[in-house]
Amino acid sequence: MSEHIVQAFDAELNAITEQISELGALAEKQFADSIQALCHADTTLAEAVRARDPQLDELAARTEGDAIGLTARRQPLAVDLRHVMAAIRIASNLERVGDLAGNIAKRALAVAPDLLPKVFSDPVQRMGELAQLQLHGAMEAYLARDAERARWVWEHDARIDVLHTMLFRDIVGAMVEDAAPMFDLAHLLFVIKNIERVGDHATNIAENVEYLVRGQQPTQPRPKKDDSSALREV
Amino acid sequence: MSEHIVQAFDAELNAITEQISELGALAEKQFADSIQALCHADTTLAEAVRARDPQLDELAARTEGDAIGLTARRQPLAVDLRHVMAAIRIASNLERVGDLAGNIAKRALAVAPDLLPKVFSDPVQRMGELAQLQLHGAMEAYLARDAERARWVWEHDARIDVLHTMLFRDIVGAMVEDAAPMFDLAHLLFVIKNIERVGDHATNIAENVEYLVRGQQPTQPRPKKDDSSALREV
Repeated sequence: MSEHIVQAFDAELNAITEQISELGALAEKQFADSIQALCHADTTLAEAVRARDPQLDELAARTEGDAIGLTARRQPLAVDLRHVMAAIRIASNLERVGDLAGNIAKRALAVAPDLLPKVFSDPVQRMGELAQLQLHGAMEAYLARDAERARWVWEHDARIDVLHTMLFRDIVGAMVEDAAPMFDLAHLLFVIKNIERVGDHATNIAENVEYLVRGQQPTQPRPKKDDSSALREV
Repeated sequence: MSEHIVQAFDAELNAITEQISELGALAEKQFADSIQALCHADTTLAEAVRARDPQLDELAARTEGDAIGLTARRQPLAVDLRHVMAAIRIASNLERVGDLAGNIAKRALAVAPDLLPKVFSDPVQRMGELAQLQLHGAMEAYLARDAERARWVWEHDARIDVLHTMLFRDIVGAMVEDAAPMFDLAHLLFVIKNIERVGDHATNIAENVEYLVRGQQPTQPRPKKDDSSALREV
């Protein structure tokens, strides 16, 4: 490519990275707010999360479209093409984080005005904070093109999985003992699953950062510890 | 573009459409088998679904990579670019259908050797068949570039949503009445949610077919009827 074309490509790629940075910040905020709304029975905050969801979808779709448009116009080669692929995949993961936050907010509205027993809201909040840290770490790694940081995130998702499996067991136990309204507990099962999936999206983003920087994703299997789908007894 | 380049582009695009056709067939099979495995407590079938999952992921990733590589090499304009975008998005939706099928199979293994009471396995099977029809319809619409057929699929997802909300209510009701092992019922809540999401992916695919053929997605909001996230009482 001529230097002129290279510069034009870089400028457009930077604009896309900017959009992803904005998208990441919005997804992080949506997710953090949805957890707050649930744990404090804050229906105003839950409504705000739901109202902002289309904005996130729109930004994600625009970012994806811009990345593909850039590819079609500039014919990027090898490394540059990796940037575009990573951008498309990261935007898609952030959009899904937004969807999960929207779903948690919807369930927060269904659970309120009941205030969740602290025995549940405390670990849900802790699990939410862990997932926020993972997501934030993955976005930092992306923006800094930092494969080491990405690998750290990738290696630490299992902490969320372990908490998820424990909480799944506790919530089903509470169902057996009829310890809280059954619908609240059912929604809570989905909330913790959504949080666990936010962690998975952070891991996906981290994998894409590693792919972007090193040219390939981690080759070993993910250190997964979520056994909840296989649980048979308390 | 010269005629030579146009032909080369078309040949590569056809190859990608072929891959998506294969991916769609595999996703449909995985999903149908996962429902069978659950409803008939067939652990061999459930294991087979889980064993085939990486194959589907690999095919989806390859299809996405080929579509972006094609874009970078051939600089497609307007209509052709829509084909590439649709291919990327449809592959991503099919990959997620595969993941959902894998998760249903995992839960089928957890629920077996208990045979689900017919009062649940019958409607789960019916819901699964509806979602299969939607997915198959969306793939037929894609392969035939048929926007009418896509619109039909798009309009009919609400049937699955209605069934999902009814079943969610029934399962939580059974939890209250302690009508079956609590873990089985908890897994069942996730199974019906997964089926409902397969329906959503079929709708996403249908939207992409409409975008591909007509240049824009449906402008009205989706006819959604899933109120389960908002349920408060039986």
